Amino acid sequence: MSTREDGRADDELRPITITRNWLDHPAGSVLVEFGRTRVLCAASASEGVPRWRKGSGLGWVTAEYAMLPAATNTRSDRESVKGRIGGRTHEISRLIGRSLRAVIDNKVLGENTIQIDCDVLQADGGTRTAAITGAYVALADACAKLGVPGALTGSVAAVSVGIIDGVPRLDLPYVEDVRAETDMNVVMTGDGKFVEVQGTAEGAAFDRAELDALLALAEKGCADLTVLQRQALGS
Amino acid sequence: MSTREDGRADDELRPITITRNWLDHPAGSVLVEFGRTRVLCAASASEGVPRWRKGSGLGWVTAEYAMLPAATNTRSDRESVKGRIGGRTHEISRLIGRSLRAVIDNKVLGENTIQIDCDVLQADGGTRTAAITGAYVALADACAKLGVPGALTGSVAAVSVGIIDGVPRLDLPYVEDVRAETDMNVVMTGDGKFVEVQGTAEGAAFDRAELDALLALAEKGCADLTVLQRQALGS
Amino acid sequence: MSTREDGRADDELRPITITRNWLDHPAGSVLVEFGRTRVLCAASASEGVPRWRKGSGLGWVTAEYAMLPAATNTRSDRESVKGRIGGRTHEISRLIGRSLRAVIDNKVLGENTIQIDCDVLQADGGTRTAAITGAYVALADACAKLGVPGALTGSVAAVSVGIIDGVPRLDLPYVEDVRAETDMNVVMTGDGKFVEVQGTAEGAAFDRAELDALLALAEKGCADLTVLQRQALGS
Amino acid sequence: MSTREDGRADDELRPITITRNWLDHPAGSVLVEFGRTRVLCAASASEGVPRWRKGSGLGWVTAEYAMLPAATNTRSDRESVKGRIGGRTHEISRLIGRSLRAVIDNKVLGENTIQIDCDVLQADGGTRTAAITGAYVALADACAKLGVPGALTGSVAAVSVGIIDGVPRLDLPYVEDVRAETDMNVVMTGDGKFVEVQGTAEGAAFDRAELDALLALAEKGCADLTVLQRQALGS
Amino acid sequence: MSTREDGRADDELRPITITRNWLDHPAGSVLVEFGRTRVLCAASASEGVPRWRKGSGLGWVTAEYAMLPAATNTRSDRESVKGRIGGRTHEISRLIGRSLRAVIDNKVLGENTIQIDCDVLQADGGTRTAAITGAYVALADACAKLGVPGALTGSVAAVSVGIIDGVPRLDLPYVEDVRAETDMNVVMTGDGKFVEVQGTAEGAAFDRAELDALLALAEKGCADLTVLQRQALGS
Amino acid sequence: MSTREDGRADDELRPITITRNWLDHPAGSVLVEFGRTRVLCAASASEGVPRWRKGSGLGWVTAEYAMLPAATNTRSDRESVKGRIGGRTHEISRLIGRSLRAVIDNKVLGENTIQIDCDVLQADGGTRTAAITGAYVALADACAKLGVPGALTGSVAAVSVGIIDGVPRLDLPYVEDVRAETDMNVVMTGDGKFVEVQGTAEGAAFDRAELDALLALAEKGCADLTVLQRQALGS
Repeated sequence: MSTREDGRADDELRPITITRNWLDHPAGSVLVEFGRTRVLCAASASEGVPRWRKGSGLGWVTAEYAMLPAATNTRSDRESVKGRIGGRTHEISRLIGRSLRAVIDNKVLGENTIQIDCDVLQADGGTRTAAITGAYVALADACAKLGVPGALTGSVAAVSVGIIDGVPRLDLPYVEDVRAETDMNVVMTGDGKFVEVQGTAEGAAFDRAELDALLALAEKGCADLTVLQRQALGS
Repeated sequence: MSTREDGRADDELRPITITRNWLDHPAGSVLVEFGRTRVLCAASASEGVPRWRKGSGLGWVTAEYAMLPAATNTRSDRESVKGRIGGRTHEISRLIGRSLRAVIDNKVLGENTIQIDCDVLQADGGTRTAAITGAYVALADACAKLGVPGALTGSVAAVSVGIIDGVPRLDLPYVEDVRAETDMNVVMTGDGKFVEVQGTAEGAAFDRAELDALLALAEKGCADLTVLQRQALGS
Repeated sequence: MSTREDGRADDELRPITITRNWLDHPAGSVLVEFGRTRVLCAASASEGVPRWRKGSGLGWVTAEYAMLPAATNTRSDRESVKGRIGGRTHEISRLIGRSLRAVIDNKVLGENTIQIDCDVLQADGGTRTAAITGAYVALADACAKLGVPGALTGSVAAVSVGIIDGVPRLDLPYVEDVRAETDMNVVMTGDGKFVEVQGTAEGAAFDRAELDALLALAEKGCADLTVLQRQALGS
Repeated sequence: MSTREDGRADDELRPITITRNWLDHPAGSVLVEFGRTRVLCAASASEGVPRWRKGSGLGWVTAEYAMLPAATNTRSDRESVKGRIGGRTHEISRLIGRSLRAVIDNKVLGENTIQIDCDVLQADGGTRTAAITGAYVALADACAKLGVPGALTGSVAAVSVGIIDGVPRLDLPYVEDVRAETDMNVVMTGDGKFVEVQGTAEGAAFDRAELDALLALAEKGCADLTVLQRQALGS
Repeated sequence: MSTREDGRADDELRPITITRNWLDHPAGSVLVEFGRTRVLCAASASEGVPRWRKGSGLGWVTAEYAMLPAATNTRSDRESVKGRIGGRTHEISRLIGRSLRAVIDNKVLGENTIQIDCDVLQADGGTRTAAITGAYVALADACAKLGVPGALTGSVAAVSVGIIDGVPRLDLPYVEDVRAETDMNVVMTGDGKFVEVQGTAEGAAFDRAELDALLALAEKGCADLTVLQRQALGS
Repeated sequence: MSTREDGRADDELRPITITRNWLDHPAGSVLVEFGRTRVLCAASASEGVPRWRKGSGLGWVTAEYAMLPAATNTRSDRESVKGRIGGRTHEISRLIGRSLRAVIDNKVLGENTIQIDCDVLQADGGTRTAAITGAYVALADACAKLGVPGALTGSVAAVSVGIIDGVPRLDLPYVEDVRAETDMNVVMTGDGKFVEVQGTAEGAAFDRAELDALLALAEKGCADLTVLQRQALGS
């Protein structure tokens, strides 16, 4: 019997919505929602690669994550106005980029660049995992539009897990996230392998049994998300 | 007989949509659409005013405008990544702020700050005028939520007008905007007075007759927008 | 009967001085004075154009505006020290550039760049309009020195107008500018057409009659400035 | 039989050196060496805490990581000269800070701040794990000097592990790091609990068995480092 | 018999002009000319001192130096646009500040700040020495206006000297400066003592005899400038 | 009879240590110690020169100086975190670069760049003079490793001198530096010529006799350092 505020089971995802082609201009675009968390993911394709990669015959996928000022409970300052990008933003942008590159065959992509933009329109926990999950779908659309669907070697999805009051839970909204003793973000491929595991003891350090429980929960959540991604892509 | 690509009459607005409460957190929020142009306007209220205004008993309304990288035809670089805000962004932010302050009674607002954020999700011409038109509605909701509806002394709306192939036209989408010989943005109050008039000769300089024709067209457009704002606010 | 502090008629310019060749190095340079407002305008010519324009056969004119720290009543901080350019500076730089480009034939200019620098040595209202008026003369000298006088398709001048205590007035000094209910900057060509019209309601919104009165005043002022520019250029 | 270039067993640390009091000024300072990787860790104590924490009675520990330009194979540009801190630097600084805060009792520390600086003098893989391991010792010295040894609730150490040619290995030098298919940094307390687990698939995604093997290796490595930290502290 | 291009004797200053009260707003202002070098020096006084000096009863004098873009032979980029101040600008600003503080009695000044701005309108060598020489006069006027003439304990002037083709010369214009084997800037008090000596071997290193010759020349030049400063101040 | 806190004679250097090859990666590297002042000097060689020098056949030597945060008595903020380099850092970087270029024959160096990094690990006065003295040795090693020992036309060393309580003293540690009335840094070649002389009146201005005494002391100190550099280089 769940005691989660939103009535979910401990191993249950929030309602997930994946809306493709939300924008007219980029090659792929997705509005992804994990409950009240809402992230706009765009995949813009362009010919050519950064200078250090020219002539290699290889493509390049990179990502930028950002949050709109009014996305959070209390308005947060705009990083463009501050004139510098914060560590958290940097960290998540890098995580998204690595996660997507894990399922890209750069030879098949050829000397093209796909720039992923994940802009959080509303934040309610799990913005980075929603971003990765949605960005994969936008990336798939962009690869198709570029005529290189084979540049994708698999799919990738991500979910957050955490221990709240000693209980491992899947896909934490903000109210759970702030109370979590341990917080873990896990990125997995569609065939059940790990791309990124990032666990952090927020309160007390965690033992191996807790770590194992969180990993199992994340495997379940990523598998569920993979199904939803496939449905969204109609495949 | 119109020759506009989208079949509109020369003095006709694009389809306008004003969706209130698009976000959970800010006091007021609106997704405003002028055709394919889509701007998310948020009005975040907070107690207190900037230091230079403390103790005055007066409130403060300010605005920031920005464009998501994938909003445009070709992806544009993120200003937070560049580390500096461009002149165009500065200019429009200032315009929105001035426009909204024109209908605010800072005494009634009291020592509260309302921060307006206008983020362009998709750009197809007229982003600054859509931003002002939508931001007014978000501001009205924020004033109501703050319990100071009387802080608004009137309404404000904005529209672009321009001369294309010698013909004055209302509410230019991107394809018309780039071809305009003269381009003007006009901000007006709900009772038909001018708040801002910004006309620019893009090609040849314009004469007084052309200026008058554009002003008349803008008066018509702002009046139409005022009606739509009232409908959206249910008043 | 005038009630202006400096005894001028409402439609009268301040004493205007245009001193050419104030500097040794740039192709054209002018110290322009509108009363106590003093702006140093330099037009530096160089071969070649920015990368995005190479091979087009077209020239490029651009402008930067800045204010010395001690130019104002109270010293203002140096933007180079702050590490960022303010919105107002950006806005005026862009206005000056657009205004001058309105009278340039880029084909005749050929692949040359003219960089305009307008540095306010002393500010007493109307710095942007003085800058445009003086910069045109510096630009004319630079075109002549470059051997392409025909790159100029006309002349351009600018003036501020405003409504103070209900009365429209021309060429506002600082003491009038801060009291103006409405403030407008108008840029016009030598043959009486409009290049830029920027009107702002500082206090209450303004109606069409007031707008018309301000435009008429600006037309008069720009015509007077055009005469002074011609005298300065000895043409 | 090991095939590692430096002749180590797969579960063997590089020679570890922890030199305390390497600097005169900070409350604690350590030069830590993991093989050829050399990191200077300083713990500077000061009275008071950041503004947002004032009056809480709680202390604050934070960290900054940086790399000298000549620390790497090929000289890297100085971040102060570039005017911005890179994402990797941000990410590691935050990791070090979180790791150390996991063993701090902020009530016992009281309203004091300890600023940790980890500057990489020479880089040969594992700089972030060396930094955490050394910084803990500097932090212990700083707490002792501040008269609050009890502010430490335990010890913390970190090590990198990775899979090279299918074989899990401990404490990777640069030559192994660049060849690793999977790379994991693990931070653990002296009593064998996890503080941070950060695993990344560099080449192919990794399965649960590989993840388990890496975690086991990391537990062994952190336990060995804990012994060396105790020896260094003479406890 | 002189071989200087401008016909001066080797120990002769260029024509020096010191124009006081060139600006309306600052407490003191001087347009100083050393030949074609033209620097606008402003001394802005304000009540209070920087935070780190509050309550000390002591005043504060600081300086900023900058160069207008069109001041040089070839236009130089604006530091505000580049977003960072160059090393040369920093160096000269600090030199001017130190030089002026050498003749200030901060107790007599009391808790007031005098901000010196030296903006080079035209550069032809010796801009920093002209700046110091002119700034002293502006500072004297500012102290008088503040009612604390006694805050000045003496006067200060500066001159450049250099060795060209083996011959020591005073007050180098640009054409000599670029050819100088050794270049020295010397700041001296009105009673003939040294405040700053900054000598640099541009070509070959210099010996003690050359150094002595340059110092003698600088003593002569500073003495001449001191006379001119006194004349300008009418004392 | 000396009254210096550390028992040295007034014309005696602190214990000087020059440790070569302190780092593995750069072509030359030196840990130089002047008493408790400890500076890590690295000379990184790379093929090619900056763009403005390409095709000239000439090499390029440049330098960057920085201080670790915990190097000073009280921790100083990191310039990379502040996002801008301070004036002092700029000034010293430029001084080191000029000093080393004084003994480089750029033709012999050919189109190669040597980048000098001087990072102060611990500061106790004289960091810039220690940096120059150590950097020369690192530069010599780099030239040898590049196969162009003849690119060095001589050696260079630097020392600080100052007047404390009226007595000229050599090589000031921090406690003397803060008390010095006059402070001078002198850079000299191995054959006794001057490269840089930078004297500053910290308290009262100094007369010619004091200047001469300081120069004599500096000549003695630089000669002593030259001997130590030769010993370190085994030549």
